[in-house]
Amino acid sequence: MRRFPEPIANAVAAFARLPGVGPKTALRFVYYLLKLPKGDLSMMAGAIVRLGERVKTCGACFSYGESEGCEICTDNRRDRSLLCVVEESRDIATMESTGAYRGLYLVLGGVLNPIEGITPDVLRIADLEQRLAANPDIVEVILALSPTIQGETTMLYLAKKLSPLGRRVTRLARGLPMGASLEYADEVTLGDALKGRRDA
Amino acid sequence: MRRFPEPIANAVAAFARLPGVGPKTALRFVYYLLKLPKGDLSMMAGAIVRLGERVKTCGACFSYGESEGCEICTDNRRDRSLLCVVEESRDIATMESTGAYRGLYLVLGGVLNPIEGITPDVLRIADLEQRLAANPDIVEVILALSPTIQGETTMLYLAKKLSPLGRRVTRLARGLPMGASLEYADEVTLGDALKGRRDA
Repeated sequence: MRRFPEPIANAVAAFARLPGVGPKTALRFVYYLLKLPKGDLSMMAGAIVRLGERVKTCGACFSYGESEGCEICTDNRRDRSLLCVVEESRDIATMESTGAYRGLYLVLGGVLNPIEGITPDVLRIADLEQRLAANPDIVEVILALSPTIQGETTMLYLAKKLSPLGRRVTRLARGLPMGASLEYADEVTLGDALKGRRDA
Repeated sequence: MRRFPEPIANAVAAFARLPGVGPKTALRFVYYLLKLPKGDLSMMAGAIVRLGERVKTCGACFSYGESEGCEICTDNRRDRSLLCVVEESRDIATMESTGAYRGLYLVLGGVLNPIEGITPDVLRIADLEQRLAANPDIVEVILALSPTIQGETTMLYLAKKLSPLGRRVTRLARGLPMGASLEYADEVTLGDALKGRRDA
């Protein structure tokens, strides 16, 4: 990094910590900010500080919310017999946007990836087992992890781990995405789409 | 954007204002920040606020610095007979990193681009003329703008505009960049490199 006035260099260093942001992009951000009024800078700074002050982790599902009991976990209209396991807090918003799920959630905190040091004890697998043990009303655990190699491995591991607990363990259907062309579908997806066919 | 807790949504909105950052990238930034300790968040917020509080525009060259008279403009060892015109404040750092220039600078604030509303009156062309009028010691004006269509147009415009002021107006040499292959050089660059050849 070339020599810049200290406040600029400090801001560049702060932005360069963000994922996928290098020193050049960080400098572009800072030069953009330098043209904004001071009020806009304080607003942005305030939004960052409040992430630390106001965002809490829900004690039941481990998702981010504004209180320690999140909106979903404390909502009595949710179906307490279903538990959906997702990788990250943001996946809950994705699931909710479908409007097709009315049960509860648990954020696993990642997927197994031994090379990056993500072994079963790093994930919230013990919390998941404990939650199932404490809540006999849960009849089905839906594993809603992305069907990547790591996601698949994690779902296999969880299915095996949870089998002694006597609950139904399901996973999301694999099939053709909306707008896909049959010609370019891979054989695993197409095979699974055929197995999971339904009445038209 | 899907429904997120308010502090998360606010931070996402703030980051999504940065150039080249959409809601998905902003969300990735925010999820990264949520995993950092509070101290790191305050540090980043502080760095942003200080951009507005501590970064000043130099009254002589219009570059960003920590005081209204910047380090370069107030440095008596600089050659006051040379004035280098650059597009943005950050270009000064680039020029300085060569170690090959010891004169003064003036930040033009952009290059002519009528489609985007950047006409001569938006740029600091009047300030440049005023500076030349007030400083008879300046014998040469170096136009160090990028050789894009807009940069070239601006340099032509400036050369014409400054010609009555009786100073030498120069521009950076065009030639082959370090590591370039002759085979892939465009004919304008190669033609100019030939005209500007020097003893080996």
